Amino acid sequence: KLDVSSNDAQTSHKTVILPGLINFASFIPTLSSEKGPVDFEAVTRSSLAAGFSFNSFLPSTLDGAVITDARSLTTVSELVSNSAYTDYGFSVAATDSNAAQIQVVSGATVSLYLPFNEFSHNQVGALSAHFAAWPESKPIITDAKTTDLASVLLLTSLHNRRIHVTGVTGKDDLALIIMAKSKDLRVTCDVSIYSLFLSQEDYPGISFLPTKADQDALWDNLAEIDCLSIGNLPTLLAKALNKPVTAGLGIADALPLLFSAVNEGKMTMEYIIERLNINPAKIFDIPEQDATVEIDLDRPVASSKASVPAWSPFESLKGVIERVHIGLQTVCLEGEIIVQDALGKEVTSGIHRNQSVISTPVELT
Amino acid sequence: KLDVSSNDAQTSHKTVILPGLINFASFIPTLSSEKGPVDFEAVTRSSLAAGFSFNSFLPSTLDGAVITDARSLTTVSELVSNSAYTDYGFSVAATDSNAAQIQVVSGATVSLYLPFNEFSHNQVGALSAHFAAWPESKPIITDAKTTDLASVLLLTSLHNRRIHVTGVTGKDDLALIIMAKSKDLRVTCDVSIYSLFLSQEDYPGISFLPTKADQDALWDNLAEIDCLSIGNLPTLLAKALNKPVTAGLGIADALPLLFSAVNEGKMTMEYIIERLNINPAKIFDIPEQDATVEIDLDRPVASSKASVPAWSPFESLKGVIERVHIGLQTVCLEGEIIVQDALGKEVTSGIHRNQSVISTPVELT
Ligand SMILES: [Zn+2]
Ligand SMILES: [Zn+2]
Ligand SMILES: [Zn+2]
Ligand SMILES: [Zn+2]
Ligand SMILES: [Zn+2]
Ligand SMILES: [Zn+2]
Ligand SMILES: [Zn+2]
Ligand SMILES: [Zn+2]
Repeated sequence: KLDVSSNDAQTSHKTVILPGLINFASFIPTLSSEKGPVDFEAVTRSSLAAGFSFNSFLPSTLDGAVITDARSLTTVSELVSNSAYTDYGFSVAATDSNAAQIQVVSGATVSLYLPFNEFSHNQVGALSAHFAAWPESKPIITDAKTTDLASVLLLTSLHNRRIHVTGVTGKDDLALIIMAKSKDLRVTCDVSIYSLFLSQEDYPGISFLPTKADQDALWDNLAEIDCLSIGNLPTLLAKALNKPVTAGLGIADALPLLFSAVNEGKMTMEYIIERLNINPAKIFDIPEQDATVEIDLDRPVASSKASVPAWSPFESLKGVIERVHIGLQTVCLEGEIIVQDALGKEVTSGIHRNQSVISTPVELT
Repeated sequence: KLDVSSNDAQTSHKTVILPGLINFASFIPTLSSEKGPVDFEAVTRSSLAAGFSFNSFLPSTLDGAVITDARSLTTVSELVSNSAYTDYGFSVAATDSNAAQIQVVSGATVSLYLPFNEFSHNQVGALSAHFAAWPESKPIITDAKTTDLASVLLLTSLHNRRIHVTGVTGKDDLALIIMAKSKDLRVTCDVSIYSLFLSQEDYPGISFLPTKADQDALWDNLAEIDCLSIGNLPTLLAKALNKPVTAGLGIADALPLLFSAVNEGKMTMEYIIERLNINPAKIFDIPEQDATVEIDLDRPVASSKASVPAWSPFESLKGVIERVHIGLQTVCLEGEIIVQDALGKEVTSGIHRNQSVISTPVELT
């Protein structure tokens, strides 16, 4: 168990210092030319203020799959350059017809993403060629569920690849993943943090949330969950409840929710560090960040001025991210970003772990 | 292409001689102690009269999975002894809890059957142990569909086994099987003959029949279908339509239906022999029968006196099985079984192909 907590002398509140976390299934509502840079900036600012020093973006937005080949990657990449407050990377989405296009962008992307969500729905049959085309060394990530999940795991096995399943909600899906792991299939998975704290018992009829039984299975199998994500679930929930859909939903809730579980003895700080930093860095080959996050566990979130106020289904959360450092510089103070320029860099070809790419020194106000 | 047709001099009807066929997914309505031997005898009689000289029985009846371990196999085996008009074998059904029991009966059975049908529904998660326990050399057969099928194929891949999927109806399932074959998974499959000739267009709301689109996909991919079966589909259909459920439904229709396809140029005689004799013998390691079947392709089925009259959704079929020989003996004439005693033998441990077990000579009336 890591020794990450200490006492704050002034107030005797408990504080922790975490390494910069990885938002590896980061969702942007739009990457269109008008609102794209604005949403992109908002998500990276929210992330940094919430303790995440790296964003790996999902290639599907509310408009569907937007990064599907070299051309669309370049378009998006140019669109958002100079808008990032964290380092970041993109994934390329598999579509029913782009198997021939993905190999050339593999080096410039974090992963191949196989989307089966409401924004871009694939046919498993069409994806075998993607497994053949995608470099063995690069990760593949999918949000496939039920039949699609079993089929994608079959493809993974037949092509002898590794895969990461994101946003697992169902207990049968989790059981299938655990079984596949036990037979040495190279599969990892994550659960959206919201799925650990919200269920269909809270929101009847919201089918993308776990049932109570599903949620119990997630908690019962925490050890088998390799990473924790934010993903598009908070955005889907806001949409379903007719709440304002803004960029970065769910990001600020992530750590305070997990701290509440630590407080109840259901999770450890070590677990959080492994699931939000160590494991995603390994799985997605994300460069190490020289970032630290200082948190006051006892302060109500409401007592901090959030840099990007956004809808949340949660009240009375505790755990204020008081400071974020990159290297020796303070880049975020009490939720406010105090660097003037967006100096986050895109992870592209040839970058591997232990080669930090985040811009240091960052400019201070 | 095999030269199996000749002209009948007397009537100039076209006749063919086929090898004895294999009913490898043979369904018995009940194997209970009262009606079991009666149903069993009826199915073997119907089979022989319809050109099938071997029955490999499904371990699930209308009462659910009835052969699940050594004890139940012995019970059934003793119950039906001296009731068989063809040689026959049994499979053992996997249940959620009998993984430890199946290994001892593996030698005495044709295959391990993983049922996901309405008579016995498995959880895929519970079946991994069955794959581990079942001998590598013995076949595994399943009727799994959609999610269950993908999961079972995943288990097959992870355990490096071979599997046969019986009664494929859906085009997505067929596509998944074809994909898995293309990646060298050792998977074979069959389609129920009824599924080639009946669809939900004929019987709206009967979900176990293929849709018209599914059926088109079956016909478009005949080459990928390794075997043709009868299975429990005719029985399910009779039940759904409130028709009399008797033993042996669908067996008499099998060849005449396929001949109608040959007549329309949609199938060849060679295809029928491969799918009803050569391939099932290989896949299920069924001993070679010294049987021949003589058929008059042009005679209406109605002109023959069927030995076991039964409900059928089809009218005006052609193709009368005029004679069935075992060795040099005629055992069936114009649909009438002309041997007095039921001398079919059970295939048990240690019997392999090319070791004929059918009783010769059979007694004549
Ligand atoms: Zn404090
Ligand atoms: Zn789907
Ligand atoms: Zn403090
Ligand atoms: Zn500090
Ligand atoms: Zn004739
Ligand atoms: Zn099922
Ligand atoms: Zn004739
Ligand atoms: Zn003859």
